[in-house]
Amino acid sequence: MGYRTYVDLIRPLLTDQEVVATGMRQELDRVELALNRAWAGETVSLVSSGDAGIYGMAGLVLEVCRARGIPLGPESEGLHITFIPGVPAFAAAGSLLGAPLMHDFAAISLSDLLTPWDIIEKRLRLAAEADFVINLYNPKSKKRDWQIGRAREILLENRQGSTPVGIVSRATREQQEVTITDLNRMLDYPMDMQTVVIVGNSRSFFLGPYMVTPRGYSDKYDLEESEDC
Amino acid sequence: MGYRTYVDLIRPLLTDQEVVATGMRQELDRVELALNRAWAGETVSLVSSGDAGIYGMAGLVLEVCRARGIPLGPESEGLHITFIPGVPAFAAAGSLLGAPLMHDFAAISLSDLLTPWDIIEKRLRLAAEADFVINLYNPKSKKRDWQIGRAREILLENRQGSTPVGIVSRATREQQEVTITDLNRMLDYPMDMQTVVIVGNSRSFFLGPYMVTPRGYSDKYDLEESEDC
Repeated sequence: MGYRTYVDLIRPLLTDQEVVATGMRQELDRVELALNRAWAGETVSLVSSGDAGIYGMAGLVLEVCRARGIPLGPESEGLHITFIPGVPAFAAAGSLLGAPLMHDFAAISLSDLLTPWDIIEKRLRLAAEADFVINLYNPKSKKRDWQIGRAREILLENRQGSTPVGIVSRATREQQEVTITDLNRMLDYPMDMQTVVIVGNSRSFFLGPYMVTPRGYSDKYDLEESEDC
Repeated sequence: MGYRTYVDLIRPLLTDQEVVATGMRQELDRVELALNRAWAGETVSLVSSGDAGIYGMAGLVLEVCRARGIPLGPESEGLHITFIPGVPAFAAAGSLLGAPLMHDFAAISLSDLLTPWDIIEKRLRLAAEADFVINLYNPKSKKRDWQIGRAREILLENRQGSTPVGIVSRATREQQEVTITDLNRMLDYPMDMQTVVIVGNSRSFFLGPYMVTPRGYSDKYDLEESEDC
């Protein structure tokens, strides 16, 4: 089961499974149908894009379980749910831009439908002050067009206009678009609900066709001290 | 080429490729060897764990290219590098905990080897104030044992002691460990360099064996308004 666009992406992998593909904005219906059939004993896979656990369907499944009082857990007589991780949209976007996510980062959705805008503004301000690389989800939709401009203004209070910015739409899918620009010029490019915008930190730089955030704040990379791989 | 532990994880996928597996703390040697052989015309794959682009090897490759003056890009006569995204450790950890990453989040490494501790403290403070779900990487190592305790103190300035915390070590590998606890008790559990600690936001809750962050700050989930899937 899943949103039609996402189910279509995995059709080549399907064999004889029953497929229930529905339209946008029917998430709750899908989740309730999936839970009802799973509760009746069927094995149901609910398909999400990117990582189902990152701004995806996983949370809604559990929120509905709570609201409906559906018992959970492999050890009880409850419903057994497995969450399968995936490549999050911002990680796919990062790989297409080079290596922008090498140091501490934040992800912020600019959709103010379920979150008051003042909370989103506060997060943008604090994330900029913290010098996080910032991943902006849901930068724009047909009905929401001013949030990305306001977000840029806030980021400019704490970050140079020359800060590298990557704009990736439909990462790894058909009609993928990848742009590397900077905070000054980022509004010149198209964005929609399938776009992730990655804003570098104060150390990020351009290198050839890539955007890079260095791994440390040391000026010299001292490998003897590194403990990560 | 890769760190021995990670190359061993993919041995079942290998056929007749030459394998160069080296020990820890030899990242720079590996990257230089990989770049030298690629520059000589060979096809080289450098293996990282999780997502190579998130606290991984991708950035070091580009930093070394810059330091060595190696030209890059498919359109020039430069070296052609493709970054292949993966499932980041914190996303794998999140999937094992339930749905902790449904809303805005930050990732912060507690390793102060390449980043001054005062920058890390500042990020912890601002991330807590912003009410991000917080993913802590590198919480502890043999030589670094106090940082996670100090991080907890900082988070407690802005978050309840009852805030859900997930501790996942070696996600999806042998000897995987998954613990759900809270800020008060989190230090009672073992952690090392292969551990990710996920600290919930002010709305996160426990549900059966899971940790969940709701998708919105609305008290009622209004599906009619949702635009994401």
